[in-house]
Amino acid sequence: MNKTYFDVGLSLDGCLAGPNARPGNPLGDGGLSIHEWMFRTATFQRVLGTGNAGHPGSRAVADGNAADDALVQAMFARPGAYVMGRRMFDEGELGWPEDPPFHAPVFVLTHKSRAPWVREGGTTFHFVTDGFASALAQAQGAANGKDVRVSGGADAIRQAIAAGAVDDFTLHIAPLLLGGGNRLFDRALPLRCAPASAVHSPLVTHVHYRART
Amino acid sequence: MNKTYFDVGLSLDGCLAGPNARPGNPLGDGGLSIHEWMFRTATFQRVLGTGNAGHPGSRAVADGNAADDALVQAMFARPGAYVMGRRMFDEGELGWPEDPPFHAPVFVLTHKSRAPWVREGGTTFHFVTDGFASALAQAQGAANGKDVRVSGGADAIRQAIAAGAVDDFTLHIAPLLLGGGNRLFDRALPLRCAPASAVHSPLVTHVHYRART
Repeated sequence: MNKTYFDVGLSLDGCLAGPNARPGNPLGDGGLSIHEWMFRTATFQRVLGTGNAGHPGSRAVADGNAADDALVQAMFARPGAYVMGRRMFDEGELGWPEDPPFHAPVFVLTHKSRAPWVREGGTTFHFVTDGFASALAQAQGAANGKDVRVSGGADAIRQAIAAGAVDDFTLHIAPLLLGGGNRLFDRALPLRCAPASAVHSPLVTHVHYRART
Repeated sequence: MNKTYFDVGLSLDGCLAGPNARPGNPLGDGGLSIHEWMFRTATFQRVLGTGNAGHPGSRAVADGNAADDALVQAMFARPGAYVMGRRMFDEGELGWPEDPPFHAPVFVLTHKSRAPWVREGGTTFHFVTDGFASALAQAQGAANGKDVRVSGGADAIRQAIAAGAVDDFTLHIAPLLLGGGNRLFDRALPLRCAPASAVHSPLVTHVHYRART
């Protein structure tokens, strides 16, 4: 059975985005810095950054950490399908290149029907109007034996946790405080887990957890 | 110059204590579990637990992880003096043994004057009524060349951060969600830092940070 997981960058105070997040400022004030470790990797620049100056993660030089780079490679390689929240899709629709960085089916949680949107490089966005469980089942069916990543945002991840659907997850904890914003674990959620690995670079601590049942 | 640091157990949702914390339930609902990794170590049982059945961390068997135990040993060995909040002291006054686990001067932040309280084993509690900076200066003077630990609770640690006094800190992150409670990083605080080490056992992830100036 393919696994369902999430893999998300957080500030040290547990936020995916800083204060004042809104369309056009989806990561809020200071929130881009959460991902600086990733933006600096050669793999990120190859997939999304260099030559895509409109992307906020574009950097002139990829001077990132080698261990961080290996994690980014694994991050792109693992999933066979995605479940994604609507706001994350709305923002990405504007920012992703013609060949979005998924190369797999992406099931978008939305209230508005829309025909599938086929992009270059194997990414097709499917719009699911009947809830998380349906999106997850469709993603599992489409993942071709690989795993399903619940991309985000926070709402989609919390729905996955609330549904008891998460097999494992990774937090990339950036050493900065945003002082508020969109906190991932902002309420009671039925998540039992155990740390399976912990590594750090100067810009981030990666902690991988296995969920317990 | 001796360093000033904090060393604190948190839930995965960033809380030092769960919901409904109050006198008699200082760690709130579920909050004791944050420290289960520590309660299971032989060092903790030697210092505070075994033979002290009134302590909530007392365990019949010390079956903890060896790496966790080494961290607990270092935790007790490092400080030459402490700064402590009044609520933590009030709770501890009831629960600590005659020979409290500090073996050093402890400077308690309070609004009520009180004569120093000398205990067995080298612990003396001093009551400081003129604020955090004064308590820290007194602790530094009394630390005999060793470092000063800001013990907690959350308020005392936030005062240390707000004062720019923190040189380094360790978070012991337990893999559980409390769903609310006393969140350490609950507001904007001027803390810049970088991860210096990250290790885990089945019950906890220890991340050590150096503060940057």
